[in-house]
Amino acid sequence: MRQVGSALWPKLRALQVYGANTGVGKTIFSSILCRALQKRFPKTHYIKPISTGPQDEADDGHLSTLSQNIRAKCLYQFAEPVSPHIAARSSPEPVTDDSVLAALYAELSSYATGEDGNVIVETAGGVLSPSPSGSSQADLYRPLRLPVFLVGDHQLGGIGTTISAWESLHIRGYDVQSVGLFSESIYDNHSYLKDYFAERDVHTFSIPPPPKRNPDAVQDAQAMRQYYEQSSSLPNVTSFTERFIEGHDKRISDLKAMPAEADKAIWHPFMQHRERSKDTIVAMDSAYGDYFQTYSTQRDQQQTAGSTEPAVLKPAFDGSASWWTQGLGHGNPQLALTAAHAAGRYGHVMFAGAVHGPALTLAQTLINQMGNPKLSKVFYTDNGSTGMEVAVKMALRASAVRNGWSADDEVIILGLKNSYHGDTIGTMDCSEPSIYNKKVEWYSGRGHWLDFPQVKMRKGQWIVEAPEELEHEHEGFSQTRQFDSLDNVFDFEKRPQDAAFYREYCSGVVEGLKKQGKKLGALIMEPVILGAGGMMLADPLFQRCLVEAVRTSGLESKNTQDWNGMPVIFDEVFTGLYRLGRFSAASFLDVHPDIVVNAKLLTGGLLPLCTTTASEPIFETFLSDDKSDALLHGHSYTAHAVGCAVANQSLDTMMRMERKGDWKAFEESWTDPGHLSQLPAERKVGAWSMWSNAFIKAISQRSNVDYVFALGSVLAISLKDPAGASYASTAATGLRDKLFTGAAGEQWVIHSRVLGNVLYLMAAMTTRKETLEIIEEKVFTALE
Amino acid sequence: MRQVGSALWPKLRALQVYGANTGVGKTIFSSILCRALQKRFPKTHYIKPISTGPQDEADDGHLSTLSQNIRAKCLYQFAEPVSPHIAARSSPEPVTDDSVLAALYAELSSYATGEDGNVIVETAGGVLSPSPSGSSQADLYRPLRLPVFLVGDHQLGGIGTTISAWESLHIRGYDVQSVGLFSESIYDNHSYLKDYFAERDVHTFSIPPPPKRNPDAVQDAQAMRQYYEQSSSLPNVTSFTERFIEGHDKRISDLKAMPAEADKAIWHPFMQHRERSKDTIVAMDSAYGDYFQTYSTQRDQQQTAGSTEPAVLKPAFDGSASWWTQGLGHGNPQLALTAAHAAGRYGHVMFAGAVHGPALTLAQTLINQMGNPKLSKVFYTDNGSTGMEVAVKMALRASAVRNGWSADDEVIILGLKNSYHGDTIGTMDCSEPSIYNKKVEWYSGRGHWLDFPQVKMRKGQWIVEAPEELEHEHEGFSQTRQFDSLDNVFDFEKRPQDAAFYREYCSGVVEGLKKQGKKLGALIMEPVILGAGGMMLADPLFQRCLVEAVRTSGLESKNTQDWNGMPVIFDEVFTGLYRLGRFSAASFLDVHPDIVVNAKLLTGGLLPLCTTTASEPIFETFLSDDKSDALLHGHSYTAHAVGCAVANQSLDTMMRMERKGDWKAFEESWTDPGHLSQLPAERKVGAWSMWSNAFIKAISQRSNVDYVFALGSVLAISLKDPAGASYASTAATGLRDKLFTGAAGEQWVIHSRVLGNVLYLMAAMTTRKETLEIIEEKVFTALE
Repeated sequence: MRQVGSALWPKLRALQVYGANTGVGKTIFSSILCRALQKRFPKTHYIKPISTGPQDEADDGHLSTLSQNIRAKCLYQFAEPVSPHIAARSSPEPVTDDSVLAALYAELSSYATGEDGNVIVETAGGVLSPSPSGSSQADLYRPLRLPVFLVGDHQLGGIGTTISAWESLHIRGYDVQSVGLFSESIYDNHSYLKDYFAERDVHTFSIPPPPKRNPDAVQDAQAMRQYYEQSSSLPNVTSFTERFIEGHDKRISDLKAMPAEADKAIWHPFMQHRERSKDTIVAMDSAYGDYFQTYSTQRDQQQTAGSTEPAVLKPAFDGSASWWTQGLGHGNPQLALTAAHAAGRYGHVMFAGAVHGPALTLAQTLINQMGNPKLSKVFYTDNGSTGMEVAVKMALRASAVRNGWSADDEVIILGLKNSYHGDTIGTMDCSEPSIYNKKVEWYSGRGHWLDFPQVKMRKGQWIVEAPEELEHEHEGFSQTRQFDSLDNVFDFEKRPQDAAFYREYCSGVVEGLKKQGKKLGALIMEPVILGAGGMMLADPLFQRCLVEAVRTSGLESKNTQDWNGMPVIFDEVFTGLYRLGRFSAASFLDVHPDIVVNAKLLTGGLLPLCTTTASEPIFETFLSDDKSDALLHGHSYTAHAVGCAVANQSLDTMMRMERKGDWKAFEESWTDPGHLSQLPAERKVGAWSMWSNAFIKAISQRSNVDYVFALGSVLAISLKDPAGASYASTAATGLRDKLFTGAAGEQWVIHSRVLGNVLYLMAAMTTRKETLEIIEEKVFTALE
Repeated sequence: MRQVGSALWPKLRALQVYGANTGVGKTIFSSILCRALQKRFPKTHYIKPISTGPQDEADDGHLSTLSQNIRAKCLYQFAEPVSPHIAARSSPEPVTDDSVLAALYAELSSYATGEDGNVIVETAGGVLSPSPSGSSQADLYRPLRLPVFLVGDHQLGGIGTTISAWESLHIRGYDVQSVGLFSESIYDNHSYLKDYFAERDVHTFSIPPPPKRNPDAVQDAQAMRQYYEQSSSLPNVTSFTERFIEGHDKRISDLKAMPAEADKAIWHPFMQHRERSKDTIVAMDSAYGDYFQTYSTQRDQQQTAGSTEPAVLKPAFDGSASWWTQGLGHGNPQLALTAAHAAGRYGHVMFAGAVHGPALTLAQTLINQMGNPKLSKVFYTDNGSTGMEVAVKMALRASAVRNGWSADDEVIILGLKNSYHGDTIGTMDCSEPSIYNKKVEWYSGRGHWLDFPQVKMRKGQWIVEAPEELEHEHEGFSQTRQFDSLDNVFDFEKRPQDAAFYREYCSGVVEGLKKQGKKLGALIMEPVILGAGGMMLADPLFQRCLVEAVRTSGLESKNTQDWNGMPVIFDEVFTGLYRLGRFSAASFLDVHPDIVVNAKLLTGGLLPLCTTTASEPIFETFLSDDKSDALLHGHSYTAHAVGCAVANQSLDTMMRMERKGDWKAFEESWTDPGHLSQLPAERKVGAWSMWSNAFIKAISQRSNVDYVFALGSVLAISLKDPAGASYASTAATGLRDKLFTGAAGEQWVIHSRVLGNVLYLMAAMTTRKETLEIIEEKVFTALE
């Protein structure tokens, strides 16, 4: 089991000692700091999680001279004096990063008795020296995010190695409290480093080096003991320990104050603040992989003092994938490095009339990977809402120009009910009146919205449930149809009659609107799943038929780039880029939209960026000799290099995962091998989810569950609500709160979001199967 | 003079050798690589820019054994074997980073003869070992951004030091081509590093270490010579040189192809693409400090072959401050590290109902530093346009609730003509019909816009020029008033009559609109300078009086948080956060708006982030027991940790610059000491610019100049245009093109943007005075 919790207790003060290099005096510093800390709080521990080389050698002259009250412990001892990743190979019992981390956390927890105390954790080798699993020391221990003491390098060249080591820690999200090193008069690294780090708010100090080794063992031991005693009383060292203890206490008091401070200074998104108080705001100390490290005053108050001191931070699985953005785990060092490289190479370079590598590469990747031969031009903005504004401007202009509509004509869009495309006025206007927009002064719904059949698993059975609107129009049409598997819903060749009916219905709606004189400028849809409007799985065949219906001369050849009837915009902000298991969500419908908008997973869950990718004919609409015919849109940070570089890295990582078959284990529970073989090559992978088929079958049988569905990393649970489904519904909040509170003694809890009576959960594309299995257990239990 | 050009020539292949630490064999590798490269292209150079220690020692066994055709050169030789920053202190002639860089660039340039050749540049010490000025090796040479060969550390602990060194290079924007190190059988760092770097697209290879030194000098020299000969023929080494040469050629061919590729795949912002071709698109290889490193096919074609080979990249001063965002220089390593730290600590953590340190700190800083006691709540979005949408939603709701307006009422805003607040439909609606919006189908101007007096320097004289609208309304009012200094324009106490007239005029407009039954929901203004609408310096007194007029009971006490008449929104996206020299642009008007929007400089010019800061009474409008009364707005990456952390670092840096008086030298030419002493303490700094008073006086006299103004880092030059001023004007484009082409032999050129007949220039807050003086020269000359 992977260790997921940050290590922070009120009275156990833990400090991790890293070395800028080997041989810089890590163990000597650790020993001195133990002694110095013990003067403040007698209860002092020392842990060396991994030690390589003969035990007495590691211990010699350092630990053996610690006073009796300092308990020293080595968790993993390898006899060979080599790097842990080599030593671990020849170990009789398997030693992995996970096991080291779990053992260390357990050890630390056992010290957290509520009594004041200290613990020094000494790492092996340098900051990025290999870990047992072949990662690095800094990556191995990152989940705990202990405050760091960096032992600097006093030798020739040590200025550079010390700063580089600090940078490696810094970009992994560590807080380096202090740098300490031996004083040395020739190179005087200390003077330089002191000034350098002072500018970066890192305190630096030096102490005299230990005496030369004495061949006489008794005299040597005595000299060392004396050295340790003297060193641990140096004003430099004492002032460090004071600062460290203050820093520890301040970190906790700041954290505890944060919800109240946020309540004062922050206006939160999408929240009725009457419901907000310091007790409802969750403070995030940090995040790593799938987990937030959270503090909440409510939880704090609930905790009862036991024999062990409760940890300040509670790990919480990021169950909304941080509003559907998270793809490659929080605190991903690769993305952090990529962001920094782009920042170092470019900063932001203005994009008007210019181009840089990351933006060009990203545009080419999107055009080439989308599997849509129509697409040829990428426009950059900052978020899904602005990207959709651009898409709408593109499409409406194309329609207006072709149809010769004037500025006075009222152009509307065609869409689906419950769709949601963003929070700016232009994109709000693309949705029908609802709770989201009804009180926004400048909102005016400009469209016609169709109700649509939904795919649901209810009581263990996949169904497609058509809305009354459809039933009413066509007597005799069965409102609810059953399917053996989700794959069969997506296998359109098996559904010729559904298709015929849908086509007829959709064409009827479109023709009817045209007869009323409506000027339809675009069809706008979120393919497959409608997200913010309520997390609904649309019947993909219905969406496909709607596209056919608006493309008045039928679904044209794939090789034709031009649009037909009206431009088709797919809002894949949420559904694209592997959220549903595929690069392109449109591929589920086997349809080629004229304009596609991507965001969220685009940057792997790090920072904002959005692309609006359009066909050449749409682009050409804006060409003329008149500047005012151009698409006069652009934000300051359009195509910012950091975002584009991170997006390239993210897409590359996810495409590699797909090629390597990293999601095969998830697909297994969903795959019907017989069925798959019949699919055309481009649709070889059917509909599958990271949530297991068996799990969603099981929870669909729960008495308080109306229906569920899962696709890709998305799971939606619609709860029965006596008050009826609505955004204002509170049916799902009980489940959400239950999951966040967790059962007593649970190592971690689940942070999730609800939409009306739907509670959804979403994984990152890197979430492990074993993690999801635990969540499935927790959810299944919570639904009882 | 600072060296500003990236070093890249078609046939001179330059490689920079960095060491992961001292003593890892940098010089030996350099020597081997020289020999190996020479086999491909005989003309091979070796440069050691800085060498410390006795010359013969540095040279011994390495350079002396180079064949005669390899020319070795040391640019700065210090006798003391210490770090360059210590050696430089005792140097008779001052040695600075600038001088080293200039000498190195000159040396490299002299090798660029058009003949195939190679040059190896060996650094001193490790990657972050100090430079002569006390910076680091990697920072010293960053402007040239030469491709890097990193000599890895083969010793115990060398895995960690090598990776950390690579990370330090990577976050500074370097491209590390390869890592090479000595093979060593015990620690076998090579095996680990090879795999590690392969995943990061960095090729790694090892070679046998040199033979042990032989006490017999002759034998030693012979053994070394043999070692070099053998090593330089190793397949590993040969394959590296092949890759390096290919890489060099590919870098150039990719760069040259980039404009054409961009023409295919990119839809640029704010551009009539009929005017675009591969020849007009500027490719940005990188950027550093104030300069882009640009390639354009047009320039390429213009270049004539001379005795020396023209450089591929031309440095161009970023004269639009990358669309007004740039504050702390491109490729700022501090911002890169800060971004990476936040990415490593948090990634992005969803902000609904949550809080994290960087977002809280930023909100508190803005509330506390704005000098506006009204402000208390910060709402986060991604760019100025979305931030303004939020501001408008806030204000209109507040007005509608207080006035009891219904959803059917048509609420409009009051604003200034030529204002511009963003590209999304909601913010477009805040501007009057113009070229920007007239062809946008869903645009509908919802407001009343006043014309306003402008501040201009014309023919050496500061004037305030009122529009006809004002003159017409008030017979006898002088359309043009003269001022002795810009400070006097901003000193409202000296202008009681202007104020009285403005107040009367503005009140008349507001009352007139109300009498017509108009429902005015907000006053929206860009304080002091109207940016995208044409770069106009509004008379600040007029703006102040307009605020007084809408606050129906007069300008209320500063301590009253509540709004009055209608909420006042200041769009400080462009003008705030030191762009005009002050944290708050509102402070120039001595007015406290109810809502302020900040972006652009907020993140120092790195990535998108926007804040909308509101007063408590505005916030309270949205409080109720009904969720649908909340401000239902929020983007996925709301308050993303990377953006907030970078913003904190940027604001902190700029506030520190202000405190330290870093802009004092600029202020001098603008300050009227007598005047300043009369100002209240909070307005102690008058109106000043980074552009000198003398310069703008001088250019205002040019025959083709209508008027100019400068404030903070902004300079605007309005050119005379026979066709009349408009966005479609081409009067300024000639000047823009002239500045970008540059004079023959100029080391660098100026990249700028125009708005109609206005060419503007903008500096970063870190741009040096000497740089601006050169630009002033260039502009003055170009205007002739």
